[in-house]
Amino acid sequence: MTLLRPSTKLTHTGALLVLAAAEEAARAMGVPQCIAVVDEGCNLLAFLRMDGARVLSIESATRKAMTAAVTGTPTGGIAPDKALLLAEATSGRMTNLLGGVPLVAGGQVVGGIGVGSGTGEQDLEVAQAAVAAFMRAQEQP
Amino acid sequence: MTLLRPSTKLTHTGALLVLAAAEEAARAMGVPQCIAVVDEGCNLLAFLRMDGARVLSIESATRKAMTAAVTGTPTGGIAPDKALLLAEATSGRMTNLLGGVPLVAGGQVVGGIGVGSGTGEQDLEVAQAAVAAFMRAQEQP
Amino acid sequence: MTLLRPSTKLTHTGALLVLAAAEEAARAMGVPQCIAVVDEGCNLLAFLRMDGARVLSIESATRKAMTAAVTGTPTGGIAPDKALLLAEATSGRMTNLLGGVPLVAGGQVVGGIGVGSGTGEQDLEVAQAAVAAFMRAQEQP
Amino acid sequence: MTLLRPSTKLTHTGALLVLAAAEEAARAMGVPQCIAVVDEGCNLLAFLRMDGARVLSIESATRKAMTAAVTGTPTGGIAPDKALLLAEATSGRMTNLLGGVPLVAGGQVVGGIGVGSGTGEQDLEVAQAAVAAFMRAQEQP
Repeated sequence: MTLLRPSTKLTHTGALLVLAAAEEAARAMGVPQCIAVVDEGCNLLAFLRMDGARVLSIESATRKAMTAAVTGTPTGGIAPDKALLLAEATSGRMTNLLGGVPLVAGGQVVGGIGVGSGTGEQDLEVAQAAVAAFMRAQEQP
Repeated sequence: MTLLRPSTKLTHTGALLVLAAAEEAARAMGVPQCIAVVDEGCNLLAFLRMDGARVLSIESATRKAMTAAVTGTPTGGIAPDKALLLAEATSGRMTNLLGGVPLVAGGQVVGGIGVGSGTGEQDLEVAQAAVAAFMRAQEQP
Repeated sequence: MTLLRPSTKLTHTGALLVLAAAEEAARAMGVPQCIAVVDEGCNLLAFLRMDGARVLSIESATRKAMTAAVTGTPTGGIAPDKALLLAEATSGRMTNLLGGVPLVAGGQVVGGIGVGSGTGEQDLEVAQAAVAAFMRAQEQP
Repeated sequence: MTLLRPSTKLTHTGALLVLAAAEEAARAMGVPQCIAVVDEGCNLLAFLRMDGARVLSIESATRKAMTAAVTGTPTGGIAPDKALLLAEATSGRMTNLLGGVPLVAGGQVVGGIGVGSGTGEQDLEVAQAAVAAFMRAQEQP
């Protein structure tokens, strides 16, 4: 009987690296953003609301991160009618808005990043830049 | 390092002026309304439910004000499918219903007004009348 | 008629400085913490959950920050019976747990920091260390 | 069979009179307040948050008004242990914090005012001043 299994968890140091990379990308783009990083249990690890970003995006950015962390794929790919059913059934936490991307290490999803306050495309671009920085950092010795 | 930044806040006197102008416009139109004014942080500043206005519009009018305050544009301009996703992802607080208009001073969004209980067009007309009064009051010495 | 009033807002750069100082103090103490920074409108600006910190402290740390931001004083000074009434009347957001301290600049409360996951005394010590760093940073040219 | 019964409702004009009287009393006292007026159905009629009043008191002031409207007596008179049970059983809406006073006309409770952001005694004093103004206005021809 297998009672236990090994797991890999994102550290807060890793979360801060992702947050900083997202902030840098948003600054370069000139669009202030809300940036959230959650772990595989959908619990918040790190968050930043940049000057001028929308306060209502605090919640939506966090939910994008949650959705990416549980699905293992970027947000936005669900059929529109199913997306609303999923949102309703999860009290709004599963969202199909663009801007959520999973954080993967060693083939395992260890969390997600969610970005919100720009257009969906801008949000996604910032999230992707942060994920790219996270992948590069994993390759460093 | 920039720890602080100057900002402008709407006073409660300003909020009452907006509320009174909206009430007058609604009375002139003969349509009782719920009228909400929030600041830039989406916190309620002033509210009035006129005799005969719908009690379920207390919440929707307030959310229209919030949405206008965070987006800096009148509510109603979002594509229908995205509007529902945004509503879900913000626990219903971001709404695409007509009747929310931002309050702007010196080029900065300082809050929003939301009006609800009439048709969307009536709600918007009342909100616009209130914003016009707010702009006129700023020009007075 | 005074429609507007000048105000000072905490930047996200300032919030990150506070967050980093709190993390450093918590690390020096050997106690992982949840650390939240909110602005004067009680909206989240920055957050970090350190490795090993309690996930249920995500919410309580944030509420400590909110309480300090609205009262302008460290949390924990309210009489026990009144503290419970205030918690109930604010849906749990106003808390008397130790670990919330206001962030002040130029005599104005610009936000609050809340720390949670250790003992109340440890939480408060970390919050105070972060506030001290924030005050020192303001004095630098 | 008596299917219907006559009732008296507070108008929004009456609610604004109460709001203005409370604001004046708070200003004279030098303590900014959140002021809420609800009808006998606990639905918000009018609200004002004065400059500098606590954003977390938006909710608690409203709940004080609700509690006074349903009990027909000023808040604060319930035994402490029962007060917490009532708060829990009403999701925090029934509160024993000082500062809620019923609005009565012709022997019937037509609503309540709730004031919050000062000490409990200050909140109550402002609410009582507003109720006194409401009683005086009823006596005028």
